[in-house]
Amino acid sequence: MLQKQLIVVFVCRTLFVNRSLGLLLLFRPQSFRLCAGKQAVRWLRMASAEHIQALNDAANRMRISAIEMTCASNSGHPTSSCSAAEIMATLFFDEMHYDKDDPKNASADRFVLSKGHACPILYAAWEEAGHLTHEQVLSLRKITSDLEGHPTPRLDFIDVATGSLGQGLSCAAGMAYVGKYIDKSGYIRVVETTALSTESTAGFQASYRVYCLLGDGESAEGSVWEAAGFSSYYKLDNLVAIVDVNRLGQSQQTMLGHDTAAYAKRFEAFGFNAVVVDGNDVSQLLGAFRNARETKGKPTAIIAKTLKGKGIENIEDKDNWHGKPVPIETIRAIEACIKDKAGKGKLPIKKPINDAPAVDLRVGSIKIEPPSYKKGEKVATRAAYGTALAKLGDACPRIIGLDGDTKNSTYSEKLLKKHPEQFIECFIAEQNLVGVAIGAACRARTIPFTSTFAAFFMRATDHLRMGAVSFANIKCAGSHVGVSIGEDGPSQMALEDLAVFRAIPSSTVFYPSDGVATERATELAANIPGIVFIRTGRPANPIIYDNNEHFEVGKGKVVRESASDKILLIGAGVTLFECLKAADTLAGEGVHACVIDPFTIKPLDKELIIKHAKRVGGRVLTVEDHYPAGGIGEAVCRSVADEPGVRVRSLCVTGVPRSGPPDGLLDMFGISAKKIVAAVHEFH
Amino acid sequence: MLQKQLIVVFVCRTLFVNRSLGLLLLFRPQSFRLCAGKQAVRWLRMASAEHIQALNDAANRMRISAIEMTCASNSGHPTSSCSAAEIMATLFFDEMHYDKDDPKNASADRFVLSKGHACPILYAAWEEAGHLTHEQVLSLRKITSDLEGHPTPRLDFIDVATGSLGQGLSCAAGMAYVGKYIDKSGYIRVVETTALSTESTAGFQASYRVYCLLGDGESAEGSVWEAAGFSSYYKLDNLVAIVDVNRLGQSQQTMLGHDTAAYAKRFEAFGFNAVVVDGNDVSQLLGAFRNARETKGKPTAIIAKTLKGKGIENIEDKDNWHGKPVPIETIRAIEACIKDKAGKGKLPIKKPINDAPAVDLRVGSIKIEPPSYKKGEKVATRAAYGTALAKLGDACPRIIGLDGDTKNSTYSEKLLKKHPEQFIECFIAEQNLVGVAIGAACRARTIPFTSTFAAFFMRATDHLRMGAVSFANIKCAGSHVGVSIGEDGPSQMALEDLAVFRAIPSSTVFYPSDGVATERATELAANIPGIVFIRTGRPANPIIYDNNEHFEVGKGKVVRESASDKILLIGAGVTLFECLKAADTLAGEGVHACVIDPFTIKPLDKELIIKHAKRVGGRVLTVEDHYPAGGIGEAVCRSVADEPGVRVRSLCVTGVPRSGPPDGLLDMFGISAKKIVAAVHEFH
Repeated sequence: MLQKQLIVVFVCRTLFVNRSLGLLLLFRPQSFRLCAGKQAVRWLRMASAEHIQALNDAANRMRISAIEMTCASNSGHPTSSCSAAEIMATLFFDEMHYDKDDPKNASADRFVLSKGHACPILYAAWEEAGHLTHEQVLSLRKITSDLEGHPTPRLDFIDVATGSLGQGLSCAAGMAYVGKYIDKSGYIRVVETTALSTESTAGFQASYRVYCLLGDGESAEGSVWEAAGFSSYYKLDNLVAIVDVNRLGQSQQTMLGHDTAAYAKRFEAFGFNAVVVDGNDVSQLLGAFRNARETKGKPTAIIAKTLKGKGIENIEDKDNWHGKPVPIETIRAIEACIKDKAGKGKLPIKKPINDAPAVDLRVGSIKIEPPSYKKGEKVATRAAYGTALAKLGDACPRIIGLDGDTKNSTYSEKLLKKHPEQFIECFIAEQNLVGVAIGAACRARTIPFTSTFAAFFMRATDHLRMGAVSFANIKCAGSHVGVSIGEDGPSQMALEDLAVFRAIPSSTVFYPSDGVATERATELAANIPGIVFIRTGRPANPIIYDNNEHFEVGKGKVVRESASDKILLIGAGVTLFECLKAADTLAGEGVHACVIDPFTIKPLDKELIIKHAKRVGGRVLTVEDHYPAGGIGEAVCRSVADEPGVRVRSLCVTGVPRSGPPDGLLDMFGISAKKIVAAVHEFH
Repeated sequence: MLQKQLIVVFVCRTLFVNRSLGLLLLFRPQSFRLCAGKQAVRWLRMASAEHIQALNDAANRMRISAIEMTCASNSGHPTSSCSAAEIMATLFFDEMHYDKDDPKNASADRFVLSKGHACPILYAAWEEAGHLTHEQVLSLRKITSDLEGHPTPRLDFIDVATGSLGQGLSCAAGMAYVGKYIDKSGYIRVVETTALSTESTAGFQASYRVYCLLGDGESAEGSVWEAAGFSSYYKLDNLVAIVDVNRLGQSQQTMLGHDTAAYAKRFEAFGFNAVVVDGNDVSQLLGAFRNARETKGKPTAIIAKTLKGKGIENIEDKDNWHGKPVPIETIRAIEACIKDKAGKGKLPIKKPINDAPAVDLRVGSIKIEPPSYKKGEKVATRAAYGTALAKLGDACPRIIGLDGDTKNSTYSEKLLKKHPEQFIECFIAEQNLVGVAIGAACRARTIPFTSTFAAFFMRATDHLRMGAVSFANIKCAGSHVGVSIGEDGPSQMALEDLAVFRAIPSSTVFYPSDGVATERATELAANIPGIVFIRTGRPANPIIYDNNEHFEVGKGKVVRESASDKILLIGAGVTLFECLKAADTLAGEGVHACVIDPFTIKPLDKELIIKHAKRVGGRVLTVEDHYPAGGIGEAVCRSVADEPGVRVRSLCVTGVPRSGPPDGLLDMFGISAKKIVAAVHEFH
């Protein structure tokens, strides 16, 4: 059964092999790389003057290419690129293991350019490696080119889109977490999420490492420190953050300028091993990367003091050169620094160590055990989500749950209890929660299900926006929506979450109304690509669907209808039940109402709505526990906007709500059965 | 002229008075308080055993009250309240200066409860102070009570709503910034935003201080560290953060548990003076607050090690007691600890030192110099925003600008250049940018105009959501919207900002299309309450309005019409000009189009749209540089949803865009004049 459902294929199945490899890594982690044939020879040569010169030559060729491509596009960030030339050359031509012909190789080291605007130097690195041609890089920022102004995964060597600053480290941390705890050469060990010991995590990880290049300016973003706290808590010693401290922001000097000690102090305080170097000095960088590799039990931050526009005559370290092409003539002086004029493409690249298990999560046919409720039984949809998530955990070991210290409210703890190795506690840091999930999903290593109160997903709106640009495959279950949460008050009530998640391009938005629908929504979420939102509620509502009811994305359900219907009511979650109560009352008055449960708000079942709207004579009343903008009402208005005979009115929460009992609030904010009945009376 | 426009009234106008006060504060800051009559006597008594016992008694009475009110409401957070009882007693009955009968007093110390769920202990403090009755606090969480489950400014002693964790310190920093640099007893000094020296800021500030109580769990939120970096950069020594390290989160132990040294290290690394104390020990707290007062040039963080549920038998320091009422019998043991059974209300409260200037910004009639453009002249709306902001700075010294290192792109630098003392550079940290603005606007001390790329305001969605719960009066100008920014690519393109800002309750959303409209939108923004969004664009477009054109909130403009119009086109910003171009082409074919510029998207000029929709025969085509959900299209669909004869189709950006030239992208993503013409041809 499991075998059939499982789409995870482990390459290294024999426990003996795994353990041998594990022990080797445990006792002499570096020796593995040192003994790996040709690798060892190159390792010894690393510090030679010849090697350093070759790396400097590569850095300068990359600088020139970055200047040329931004001149060709007449826009872009050559100065932010040039500060990082030596960092990138050292990373790509000495430190990192990757396959230039297979950038997505599961065992290859990962690289995240958090300072995405510096992508010309990244494109130049892939040109130097031989993956891109010079002609290709000169297509920078053209509408026909995938070499965009900021990196996106339209390029095969990009895992996550960057360009909204401060997000890269969370994604890198997600990748490193997967590398350390999930990609463990084919077998799974239980990880204690509350009290990790170095012992419990050492030795058995996949050998790939994760590198993230940050700008200094973006370190003012709090999300960087959310990621830092997470990375040290989980002892991600396979993660290296490099901060390109080039001192200058877009509009003025950064907060800390060239105070590299201050950066080091901050990273150390957040649990990192911090190393300060001259980031334009290859030999210092080589030493720093070696230090990082030798540091166990904590991630490393390399604080690299650089000059913005390094190497560009009359522009280096000068203000007012952010995001502007520089004169093309400036490449002459840089060319003069290159010793081996014919050196391009000659630097060898370290091959990946093929020890990450093969995983195929690209197409999904993951099935869960069917729901088992009794009709009428009261179940909160958040509880049903937890039940379904735990079942998904049974079905696929690569489905993971992530939560922000709300797992006992969102019920994601049901997965934790059953499959602790498939759960990541992310604490109260929702940007990082989403960022880690985006990283964990990269190269289709896992399918992450994140959860918190829906209101707190709003904290990660920009990360979700960027997640869409990354074509990320992550699932978000937001609980405690609307005024129906009751006494906790407006700070905890999600009332704009549908607007936000609907706005995310290519998202799918589920709003299941009972336990059966919720379990099926969760199952469907695992089987469709992209960013999926599942809106769950706090109060328990009766089960209305049979356990074997079939649900589809974009297909609504008519939950009440008669031949004499005179109005169509559309509600979801708590308001579906208010619609049903209102329909009962109205039926007593001889006014019959059709009631539709849309199941997905995006895509919306336009055909079903139009069909029944026309059938009942054109009157549609939507009812939602959400603010007016961007919710069910507007989605329905749009769906019928081209139908001349259909009229829509909407009940929703207008104005900031307050604390109170759920039923009292539903009525006070105009979405109770009573208010629905009144609205129907007025709707002629 | 200025006098008439100015609604800022300075109480202390005489420079002599101000300078005397300033010098006194400069040389012996503490002596001022020591010499202030009765204050001095109390100060000397502070460390006495009697005083400490009185504070402990107060803490225990507050504990009991917190337990009683959460028992009465059968929900809430007594354990999170009890850990902080001594902190609150010490703050309210020894440290802070305030007027219990006038909580909004401009000169009073500010208190922000960032860990908003612990509000029972805050309500208990105001009960102990005599501002609330015991009957009132027992109404906690009832629908008829303003004592909500998390604090909101419906209560007169609350400045900002809290409950979404990690936001309080930014608000407190905004208040402290205003206290230090703007509320300077009636006169303004130029502050160098790029290189602050201690000298330039010492001595002349208003004497009120700002206190912010944080939870330990919420310190995982990056926004806390954004606020911390900001506060130390601006040397906010009038700010004290107290971290209630009670070890336990909602669902498990926090990342750092009781490791107070780690918290201290983090705050020190972020430039704070950090003091570690036993947070349930009043005498240690008294010393820490004294240390904070004596620390100059940096803010102080008091790391208070506490026990969750402190004092509650069998529950203290135990897991699984978050957000649950405790047995009412537990108050007996706490009662037994109270020495002076009749002590309630006897502790004296320090009065505010009345040295903050009186400011009245409640009603606005701020006028700017009229726009001065030539019709047809090309001006980017972002540039016009900067021009208007600088004019607002002329008109009112309490209008301030805040930016996130994009001031040379949003053009807020025009205000900085003219009025540097009215500008706060907030660096790349948009959550803090908005949080500081919310704090700065409190008690109507300033009208903050924040700006960054509209896409990066998405980073602050949750802060904006909470801003609405705070009834905050802040203005957000978001530039670089849509695919029309061109080559920078999707990470920089705001395409969901209308959905987000429209969803904020009681927000106003301007989308001005030319320079004249933008200047008027900016002027209007200063004169209406609440959260205002101004959507500005990157490319320059022609001026179409007369300089004396009159604009109003909720009133659109018909920019093209004829008696033979057969369709209504609605566009804004760049798409208004595409609509006009399309109308030209269509007119050549004999198809006449009416074109409307809505000016505000929220509120939308429903009457104007319906009137012209009906006039042209019912066909409406909306065109927007925005994703489908929550934008102009859906706003228009909703506005005509109850009109049976009106049909709406919408052109907008579907799918993730890419880098390219603006015109090419407008066409590729379906919102160019050409695509409008085609859509009109198909719309029968």
